[in-house]
Amino acid sequence: MAIRQGRTISLEKEIRIISSAAAVGRLEGEGPLKESFDRIFNDTTMGEKCWEKAESNLLSAAMQRALQKIKLEDSSLDAVFAGDLLNQCISSSFAARDMNVPFIGMFGACSTMALTTAMASLAIESGGINTCMAATSSHFCSAEKQFRFPLEYGGQRTPTAQRTVTGAGALILSEDFSPLNPRIKAVHLGKVEDLGIVDSTNMGAAMAPAARRTIADFLIDTNTLPSDYDAIFTGDLGLVGTRLLRELMLKEDNIDISSVHQDCGLMIFDRETQDVHSGGSGCGCCGSVLCGHILSEMRKGKLRNILFVATGALMSPVSSREGESIPGVAHLLNIVI
Amino acid sequence: MAIRQGRTISLEKEIRIISSAAAVGRLEGEGPLKESFDRIFNDTTMGEKCWEKAESNLLSAAMQRALQKIKLEDSSLDAVFAGDLLNQCISSSFAARDMNVPFIGMFGACSTMALTTAMASLAIESGGINTCMAATSSHFCSAEKQFRFPLEYGGQRTPTAQRTVTGAGALILSEDFSPLNPRIKAVHLGKVEDLGIVDSTNMGAAMAPAARRTIADFLIDTNTLPSDYDAIFTGDLGLVGTRLLRELMLKEDNIDISSVHQDCGLMIFDRETQDVHSGGSGCGCCGSVLCGHILSEMRKGKLRNILFVATGALMSPVSSREGESIPGVAHLLNIVI
Repeated sequence: MAIRQGRTISLEKEIRIISSAAAVGRLEGEGPLKESFDRIFNDTTMGEKCWEKAESNLLSAAMQRALQKIKLEDSSLDAVFAGDLLNQCISSSFAARDMNVPFIGMFGACSTMALTTAMASLAIESGGINTCMAATSSHFCSAEKQFRFPLEYGGQRTPTAQRTVTGAGALILSEDFSPLNPRIKAVHLGKVEDLGIVDSTNMGAAMAPAARRTIADFLIDTNTLPSDYDAIFTGDLGLVGTRLLRELMLKEDNIDISSVHQDCGLMIFDRETQDVHSGGSGCGCCGSVLCGHILSEMRKGKLRNILFVATGALMSPVSSREGESIPGVAHLLNIVI
Repeated sequence: MAIRQGRTISLEKEIRIISSAAAVGRLEGEGPLKESFDRIFNDTTMGEKCWEKAESNLLSAAMQRALQKIKLEDSSLDAVFAGDLLNQCISSSFAARDMNVPFIGMFGACSTMALTTAMASLAIESGGINTCMAATSSHFCSAEKQFRFPLEYGGQRTPTAQRTVTGAGALILSEDFSPLNPRIKAVHLGKVEDLGIVDSTNMGAAMAPAARRTIADFLIDTNTLPSDYDAIFTGDLGLVGTRLLRELMLKEDNIDISSVHQDCGLMIFDRETQDVHSGGSGCGCCGSVLCGHILSEMRKGKLRNILFVATGALMSPVSSREGESIPGVAHLLNIVI
């Protein structure tokens, strides 16, 4: 039975990540984390005629690779928890259609990797499910088409804008007693925070308050300090959001996370040599960085106790056009090995 | 600890629906179930200038009413599980923004009421959460605008088309020992089924195979017959989907559900006097029928053991335009009192 301290949920069962895989596009495959990805697609159409199907194929590639690594059939899974940024989450639904497995669709915008993993962990803790997958994807071209402009338009991007990562991450969770597999020790589900940011080309600023709230609440609940963790990874705040998060936490909470904080949106690209403005974003950003780089570093013993805080901007182009500000949310996983 | 029989999950804890509320629009408020709804909005703009905000207000109205009925503050909830049909689930996100509660966004199309309730139940069973809300909404005008044509176009609808219900349902779940409250006894999470239906004005046909699979699997897992239940409610198959489901189950599974089967899409409107073609649809259809009529009948003791099977069509206008067929999914709750 899980134990609650404040809003932080510590899992009693030994729920471990028994496999994980990341699949990315060409630009991500040329970035600093290229060695950690399981598949790099140089042709980001994945042989499809439309971007939505390409993204769904990318997600399937990550899902299938995670299964292959431990020689598991998809029918051995009790459920797939997945979501993405596309309208009606079609990347996930169509990837799930090809699997003979109950499908739990989730929407947390770019927080989806932490949200699906957290809910999958609680489902295992309940005893209702033994082994399941948590996964997410995003694609630069499907996101540009849906949220901004058709690629052919060649629109200029603002300096605060982030580049949606073409990437997918999938991990398999199970009650498991191997100390070699990273364990989900605790989860913290975030509240919606909205400080009134209306600029949809500045998502980092919109999401930073949610990340701050979730991290601060977790540290208070668990009576721990940032220095108790090898690293605190945020989802995709990018350069602007990263600066804001550190500043906010220092000013409002008197907590300095700068020595252990890294942002997946800044890790996946080299901003000096790759034209990505404020960094990477999209569900697949922290999804592929977690399922590729972070879990790989944990398995090597280079990281032993981390916080993974995926942030999401819960807006749509319609809500922005209707003058709404951008609500943010951040969900946290404490992963140990 | 939950007990699994096949893919059916029986909950060990006494997880009960301690409150519920339904809010609907004018047409729904003139239908056969009008007495069971907590709020009926004659002005379906809810005083807003756009349909998306109207839908979000409708959802908030159901959520707040469910809280008020048991004099609960929203901050007493450990989480809100919600989702809807709008792109990026903005009806739910913006409703959740106004609550000081962790937000779990879900996407199951019209299966959302069962999906959110099932996942909320598993979260309570895990011990990670004590009291939470499951909710969903849909709105005829926001759905027409997004999925079909602007209302002003005045397009003709085909006889197989269903009318999206303007409605929202919200229920509050908690471990609770009052025999007067309906209890979630078991949940069954569905797989994606796709028999190749491509006509997005015939959702009932696309979803019927998923409903069949989920109901048949549940009956096999639990070794029960349709006659063991007071009623089997499907989400929103409408007239075409209802006929197909009964026919499919009779032919393929040799199971006759017709004597106990009712479809929320046929219950919420009077097809003789209301111009709704094949019946109602949308997340808010079975959401408002469950949280209004069905739970009310259970509290009166008129129904004591039911199956609630919400069905979803996991498509988007983009996937349809790109030639994809319509994947269906159905999630099941066994509710008893």
